[in-house]
Amino acid sequence: MRESEVIERLRRIATAPEARGLLDDVAVLGDLVITHDSIAEEVHFLPQDPPASVGWKLIAVNLSDLAAKGAVPAGALLSLTISGPGAWEMDFLDGVEAACESYGLPLIGGDTVAIRPGAPRVFGVTALGRAERVPGRAGAVPGDLLVVTGPLGAAGVAFRAGRLAPPPQRLAEGRRLAAVAHAMLDLSDGLGPDALHIAERSGCRLVIDLDLVPLVEGATRADLEFGEDYELLAATPDALDFTIIGRCEEGSGVSVPLRGWEHF
Amino acid sequence: MRESEVIERLRRIATAPEARGLLDDVAVLGDLVITHDSIAEEVHFLPQDPPASVGWKLIAVNLSDLAAKGAVPAGALLSLTISGPGAWEMDFLDGVEAACESYGLPLIGGDTVAIRPGAPRVFGVTALGRAERVPGRAGAVPGDLLVVTGPLGAAGVAFRAGRLAPPPQRLAEGRRLAAVAHAMLDLSDGLGPDALHIAERSGCRLVIDLDLVPLVEGATRADLEFGEDYELLAATPDALDFTIIGRCEEGSGVSVPLRGWEHF
Repeated sequence: MRESEVIERLRRIATAPEARGLLDDVAVLGDLVITHDSIAEEVHFLPQDPPASVGWKLIAVNLSDLAAKGAVPAGALLSLTISGPGAWEMDFLDGVEAACESYGLPLIGGDTVAIRPGAPRVFGVTALGRAERVPGRAGAVPGDLLVVTGPLGAAGVAFRAGRLAPPPQRLAEGRRLAAVAHAMLDLSDGLGPDALHIAERSGCRLVIDLDLVPLVEGATRADLEFGEDYELLAATPDALDFTIIGRCEEGSGVSVPLRGWEHF
Repeated sequence: MRESEVIERLRRIATAPEARGLLDDVAVLGDLVITHDSIAEEVHFLPQDPPASVGWKLIAVNLSDLAAKGAVPAGALLSLTISGPGAWEMDFLDGVEAACESYGLPLIGGDTVAIRPGAPRVFGVTALGRAERVPGRAGAVPGDLLVVTGPLGAAGVAFRAGRLAPPPQRLAEGRRLAAVAHAMLDLSDGLGPDALHIAERSGCRLVIDLDLVPLVEGATRADLEFGEDYELLAATPDALDFTIIGRCEEGSGVSVPLRGWEHF
């Protein structure tokens, strides 16, 4: 049994329109967008990673989901599943606090659960934001331009150097793009798989020119397959001042053979 | 280091008024109340527990938090941290679905994380509801009556029989009490500790007459210390038609020496 079967099962439960078919990484309730992401030790971070960086990344990743919906952060709830509070957890919370302050995200709730020693730590964040127009993954049409909000590859470069890359903060860019874009998401799985999400949901083909894709210093095209860049990818009739990397056409699929991150 | 130190640390981060000082098990954002609870294998449930019952209980416990705020359920996000989807997970989701349908709670979001085989499963729910007046733990005053919405002890009786007790559904009762009560919560830690939460936050003494506390069939007073009854306890000038078990007085503490469930 694979992750897709769990997602399919969840979709059959989540039939309310606010769920958006669980296809957009976000729920919409009135003017609120709500997103939840969990990270687990040994999967999303390692015991030897600096705990403050893990805490920062947890908040940053959830803010990225809000940015991709053009939302203004309204608050977050934090869930800690830990075998007991120690110095690691306190440093982790330092990182959470620094990120919340940096992003203007009020922490408005939280809960703690004690698991047995040796079990992997699990952290969850529910982030809430306010948005007027919420682009999803569907909606891209032939003729749209594909734009990204910054250079890619930083997470892969950092991984090879044994570091965690701090995700970029694209709240302002997300709000500007949300006003015009037909479809938008944040690049977490990798440019290839994330472009495919838009192509499949929108029913069109995404043609990407790899020569136009901006890379951070030291990155190669192989780093595009690492994912976790958290720049925004939008299909939009107006590129504003963002970097154009391709366009939407009639058809299906994505023009570049880029793999990405598999969750299960 | 103890749980209280983590909570204190979280409180120093959660300074926004919407957080209510993390003292009410709930955040308030406009007319929305938002609660998050996680449950972990080996802590809140055992591998041999029927998975559908675990799924039902997870939803029911979060609904209980909404009931204690007089809220109408608006939606829930579900987070699954599992080593891989199998028959256990599918049965668990059957229980989640049945509870959502029974309670009229739309599932509007969710995410999954794959952990290594053998690691305890962790599930989180963010539940959102709409409420006009949201009683907290503070606000009880001398002269208030203490009422409960049903008989206690069911969880302890079920535990001794090797079963999970399905939490009661008190949404309607919660809404009626929220319109008049000065303070309210759902009984999860146990009557003694939960009454103490209200006493400490309200700055008064809670005098409980154990002869007035209704018990389910087969329960003894010892079962009051098990917790997890999920009936509502309110301090209110008007008892409506609920069972009176005591009153608020000047002073501090709780008159009955009942212990309860310690989370760490």
